[in-house]
Amino acid sequence: MAEIAVLGFGVVGSGVVEVLDKNSGMIAKNAGQGVRVKYILDVRDFPDSPYKDLIIKDFETILNDSNISVVAEVIGGVGVALDFTRRSLEAGKNVVTSNKELVATHGFELLRLAREKGVNYLFEASVGGGIPVIRPLAQCMAANIVTEIYGILNGTTNYILSEMAKNGADFSDALLDAQRKGYAEADPTADIEGYDACRKICILSSLAFGRHVYPQQVRTEGISGVATEDMRFAAELGYKIKLLGRSRAIGGKVAAYVAPHLVGEDSLLAGVEGVMNGVVIRGNAVGNVVFCGAGAGKMPTASAVVADIIDSVKHLYARKWISWDDGSDDLAVDPAQLESAWYVRTPATREKVAREFGEVVFAGKTDDATAFKTNVMSGKIIGELLSRGIPALSLFRVLGDY
Amino acid sequence: MAEIAVLGFGVVGSGVVEVLDKNSGMIAKNAGQGVRVKYILDVRDFPDSPYKDLIIKDFETILNDSNISVVAEVIGGVGVALDFTRRSLEAGKNVVTSNKELVATHGFELLRLAREKGVNYLFEASVGGGIPVIRPLAQCMAANIVTEIYGILNGTTNYILSEMAKNGADFSDALLDAQRKGYAEADPTADIEGYDACRKICILSSLAFGRHVYPQQVRTEGISGVATEDMRFAAELGYKIKLLGRSRAIGGKVAAYVAPHLVGEDSLLAGVEGVMNGVVIRGNAVGNVVFCGAGAGKMPTASAVVADIIDSVKHLYARKWISWDDGSDDLAVDPAQLESAWYVRTPATREKVAREFGEVVFAGKTDDATAFKTNVMSGKIIGELLSRGIPALSLFRVLGDY
Repeated sequence: MAEIAVLGFGVVGSGVVEVLDKNSGMIAKNAGQGVRVKYILDVRDFPDSPYKDLIIKDFETILNDSNISVVAEVIGGVGVALDFTRRSLEAGKNVVTSNKELVATHGFELLRLAREKGVNYLFEASVGGGIPVIRPLAQCMAANIVTEIYGILNGTTNYILSEMAKNGADFSDALLDAQRKGYAEADPTADIEGYDACRKICILSSLAFGRHVYPQQVRTEGISGVATEDMRFAAELGYKIKLLGRSRAIGGKVAAYVAPHLVGEDSLLAGVEGVMNGVVIRGNAVGNVVFCGAGAGKMPTASAVVADIIDSVKHLYARKWISWDDGSDDLAVDPAQLESAWYVRTPATREKVAREFGEVVFAGKTDDATAFKTNVMSGKIIGELLSRGIPALSLFRVLGDY
Repeated sequence: MAEIAVLGFGVVGSGVVEVLDKNSGMIAKNAGQGVRVKYILDVRDFPDSPYKDLIIKDFETILNDSNISVVAEVIGGVGVALDFTRRSLEAGKNVVTSNKELVATHGFELLRLAREKGVNYLFEASVGGGIPVIRPLAQCMAANIVTEIYGILNGTTNYILSEMAKNGADFSDALLDAQRKGYAEADPTADIEGYDACRKICILSSLAFGRHVYPQQVRTEGISGVATEDMRFAAELGYKIKLLGRSRAIGGKVAAYVAPHLVGEDSLLAGVEGVMNGVVIRGNAVGNVVFCGAGAGKMPTASAVVADIIDSVKHLYARKWISWDDGSDDLAVDPAQLESAWYVRTPATREKVAREFGEVVFAGKTDDATAFKTNVMSGKIIGELLSRGIPALSLFRVLGDY
């Protein structure tokens, strides 16, 4: 019987305890032995919880209990979560987590520490919630040189965009609706400004390309600039608008960014609606593989954390080899050099647009704006063309065959 | 440096050797050491191949070489492939394979032998080609009780159905086209009659539900009965027609079958077109996760075989725990008891249909047939209703929320 500790009894933490309980037979079979939660660390009391007897307030108890081989950190953030993770690893305990902010900002350091101590630091739940992405990328794609990763990495923004497209809702109404349904937090900044997607593309990039890509190296644009008429214009052109994190290896460096994109209506990502996530990984042997599913939520995220617990229990004495090297200031290159077609909404006249851009596909027209899709060009080039008197109310890339 | 042998130098075998060569640096990093092909076993000569010096004809050479720790069996079939696999495992060598027929018919026996000998028998490439499915199912979904698996498991039939839907081609023309393009073999029986999909759903079912499901326990219907007008009627109803393998756990038993289905135009599987594959796995914690990508082809399949080689090299002394128990004659239950809506094409009049079925959705009408979608009912019930003078020219399930 393996004994574990769960740090944090919030949404994900309680899900972890429930999954371990509910699926205990299956989990024991897969782990090779039973898995028992011995401690739940939280500052709060939970007098009505069936697990109230497991709750403790002193982290030292866990640290000093040599029977605890695996610690599940589901506190979130980079405060005590960082401290507890470091100390757990230093004490020779495996750590598993759903904490994308911590992995995106301190992944290199923590993975190095885990390696030094001969234990695992696993984080399947940090990207794509319950969708298996990290492990397939590290293992199944191990024979491939990964050239590009992109995807819908945030369910909150995808829900809002889906609602805007479906019902013609404007951004603020769709956000309110998402908050009412519990898909968006009271302070939705991290989701709608793209910070959450940014952390996830950092983790995927670091794993795929072997060096730590930090959040400040990823140009990040959220969805608050997506207007209802952009949805309509995009549909006229045969596209949906999705917030994508994207990362591409270019000559030993990495171009990574987060921004709204137009994706073809017939593409698989266009079918990823509501709070679902979808990740595309491109390998030089396998081509594109796509993973889709619930990108957040209590039970999906918990199921990924528990999969890491099972893997840690199975590999107590055989460390997994997930790791990457440190990054550097010059690792990131400007994504503006990446070429694509572009979607532009502008108050400029069609005549003016045609004069500067040559051949474009016009989408439609309202009283005060027109929209069009350009030929393929870099961010630098389109910036120059727009600077000639074509102010862009919206400017999004069109996802295509890069 | 790990030394391996490749059995069979056909399409997949040559791809395996090429991937190991092309991505050798990445592979050495992921495997913890370099991987070198020491022998390629084939009865043929390849005087023009850059690898001609590695080719041998005597399997005993491999068997007796104690430096060979991993054998990649990419011969296919259940003849010498079975014999070589057994003897390799008995000699304490890890075996990896893309051979779905062998795993579907002898998986239990070979996995048991591997366990007895303390080595791995891995088969990621046997389902979904290069798409990671087997390992995510075994590892990432380890915290879930899997309740159902279904998917587009054969690229040849999906290409044919896609062409029929897109171009209004009839089945035999689409098959000829697929053969010309190399997507279908000269004898296409195993693909179009569903046998290939059957083997894959056997492997997925065995892994997910823990007991070996054999091909003869899976009711298998191919696509030769799908008519061009079924495509048109399905589109009128808002569906595409896809050949699905499906398997569901029911009270300790398994209902598995292969048959054409109507899938909603907005669903992710409907977006899986051409030679692509898509697999949906439903877990009790995570919900549905979907994996899509190239389901066949030289390099995608080879990349999955090589991923297993890497995993074997990393785990030479720590066996992976992929296994299942033996099946039994009473493991399979009749899929007719599963409920769904149904699509029927019939020469019976609409009046007659309405009289027997009550409320249905009619799709359209040609001179000699009409088509409709029923309410949700079991296969038994619809069989009874149809027996009252409504002959079915086509009878397909409609994929929905089961």
